[in-house]
Amino acid sequence: MEEAIAMNGGDGPNSYTQNSKFQEQGSDRAKALLSNSIQEFLDIQESLQVFSVADLGCSVGPNTFSCVQTITKAVQLKYKAHSLKLEVPEFHVFFNDNVTNDFNTLFKALPVHRHYMAAGVPGSFYGRLFPKASMNFIHSSYSLHWLTKVPEEVVKEESPAWNKGRITYVLSSCEVVKAFTSQFLSDMEAFFSARSLEMERCGLMALLIPCRPEGTLPSDSIFCQFFECLSGALKDLVKEGLVTEALVDSFNLPIYIPDASELKKAITSNKHLELLKMEEVYFPPMLTSPEDVLACSRHVRAAMEGILCNHFGSQIMDQLFEKYSEKLEEFSKMPHFIRVKNLENLFVLVKRNDLV
Amino acid sequence: MEEAIAMNGGDGPNSYTQNSKFQEQGSDRAKALLSNSIQEFLDIQESLQVFSVADLGCSVGPNTFSCVQTITKAVQLKYKAHSLKLEVPEFHVFFNDNVTNDFNTLFKALPVHRHYMAAGVPGSFYGRLFPKASMNFIHSSYSLHWLTKVPEEVVKEESPAWNKGRITYVLSSCEVVKAFTSQFLSDMEAFFSARSLEMERCGLMALLIPCRPEGTLPSDSIFCQFFECLSGALKDLVKEGLVTEALVDSFNLPIYIPDASELKKAITSNKHLELLKMEEVYFPPMLTSPEDVLACSRHVRAAMEGILCNHFGSQIMDQLFEKYSEKLEEFSKMPHFIRVKNLENLFVLVKRNDLV
Repeated sequence: MEEAIAMNGGDGPNSYTQNSKFQEQGSDRAKALLSNSIQEFLDIQESLQVFSVADLGCSVGPNTFSCVQTITKAVQLKYKAHSLKLEVPEFHVFFNDNVTNDFNTLFKALPVHRHYMAAGVPGSFYGRLFPKASMNFIHSSYSLHWLTKVPEEVVKEESPAWNKGRITYVLSSCEVVKAFTSQFLSDMEAFFSARSLEMERCGLMALLIPCRPEGTLPSDSIFCQFFECLSGALKDLVKEGLVTEALVDSFNLPIYIPDASELKKAITSNKHLELLKMEEVYFPPMLTSPEDVLACSRHVRAAMEGILCNHFGSQIMDQLFEKYSEKLEEFSKMPHFIRVKNLENLFVLVKRNDLV
Repeated sequence: MEEAIAMNGGDGPNSYTQNSKFQEQGSDRAKALLSNSIQEFLDIQESLQVFSVADLGCSVGPNTFSCVQTITKAVQLKYKAHSLKLEVPEFHVFFNDNVTNDFNTLFKALPVHRHYMAAGVPGSFYGRLFPKASMNFIHSSYSLHWLTKVPEEVVKEESPAWNKGRITYVLSSCEVVKAFTSQFLSDMEAFFSARSLEMERCGLMALLIPCRPEGTLPSDSIFCQFFECLSGALKDLVKEGLVTEALVDSFNLPIYIPDASELKKAITSNKHLELLKMEEVYFPPMLTSPEDVLACSRHVRAAMEGILCNHFGSQIMDQLFEKYSEKLEEFSKMPHFIRVKNLENLFVLVKRNDLV
């Protein structure tokens, strides 16, 4: 079996969502989409005994529990709407994240009065996690923007794609952007290939992914800009002699924010999958007061501290995130921020295509 | 769903096995029994896509991985012997232990080149863990002697079953023994009830349980005597003023070592289960040299330290296990030890009875 590939070094993507007040609004919209998709597209199998659900990139809760709740409730409703006599299958829920995730904390946080059997699944979702045709519903929220790795060429001095002085591709040369895009597409191919094998004949998959507006530049993504503010903060620490230039040059965030067409391409190139729905979910980040800026900085810190500590050491984290708050505040006052101030996400619903 | 009941407070039962050199011999015999049982009794289902295996009380490895390896290899062999053309189903392996188990360590220790999909399942195996009829093979080794709790009456001063001054029932009054036996039978009823629901139509369950010879007294179990030596060690600490008498009086080990007839009764009283095999597995503990005694003391410490620390505090552990080694050595020189010196275990094979 393919083993976990190196991925996010920190608490993982969900820490970001789980702490983000400003994402609540979008999160409600995403849950409504999730619920409605099940009502509209789930095929009822009358003889099904067990309905298996997976949440990929689950972190340690509580977001994952709330998503699972939305999914299982919607499935129950759909079954009951189909026929009151029909017995709803038992739910088997698989919580997946990297092997470095704190599953002990996740398990202790499991709702006591849950109406499903729970299991934890360690491993990279870019490889196989479940037996063939075993999953009825796969869900992943705010996780697929984490790449399996930083493209090698962007940290090589001799490469035309060397991303000197930056830790994202957002404001970098075409070569750097291409290297990241290519890594994303290759990771997506692996992801959809594994999932298409694991999805049951009538299986559905719902994904929520941060994205940028169709046909725009990376710099038009507010997510990317948030991460790029970290480059600025690190540059300041270099100036102050707290970090060496070489250390910054050898680090990039393994993150890519696609646009809709890139994601669509990745899905439709897998002949076993059918794209049922692709919908944008916007919500405005609140950076209007110093408190908002601080809250945003804290959320990014929760999500990124692990991976940053691994490379730069824990001793500079306080200074780094102090600088980061300053950079965020500067950014929030730029005309560019006003223009791109919607946090954009894609909600995607995919079906196992049984015809091929 | 029923949530985990308080059980073993420490690293759990498997720490005992995993560190026990003197159990290797019996462990090989148990593995042979496991493998042969699958060859003899497993029904081949030609259309089966996924073969689900559970190990209950898995601890953090490596014993659990080795048992799973034995099971999956035997299933593969059986399928190939049935027909070379038949595709062996994919294996889905569920590692279960209490929610306090260190699943993070377990997950990091998973064999990289495993030929199965792995999942961790937190929760007490005295409640439901898996969906109905979902398990093809359930295994549990050295775990079922842990009770869900100490019977309440044995730590109540006003009760006729008060177990003053002792932490096991081994040398105690009939009332104390009865309270423990009753707790064991009630736990077993819950265990087999949950498993009979979870086992698939052709499902098998193999259990390895420390036991005492049929129709003997609790004091004829060397396991019980090993644990009872802890009572003696604690008494010495009371004399030395390191522990209060009341603290010892309020503690009992939630452990019961059944004999074959008790276990048989528990299984056969569940109408959904059929007992296919019950075999004794003996092996001699080595307590012939001071090194053996020290090793044995260390194994018991690994298994019991968690639960003892919770009650007595960590600061007395070194002294307690120094005394414990002395008590073990004294015991190994008693005529009683010579008489009962075989560590006795029961290997039990159970089938889901489809007829009821």
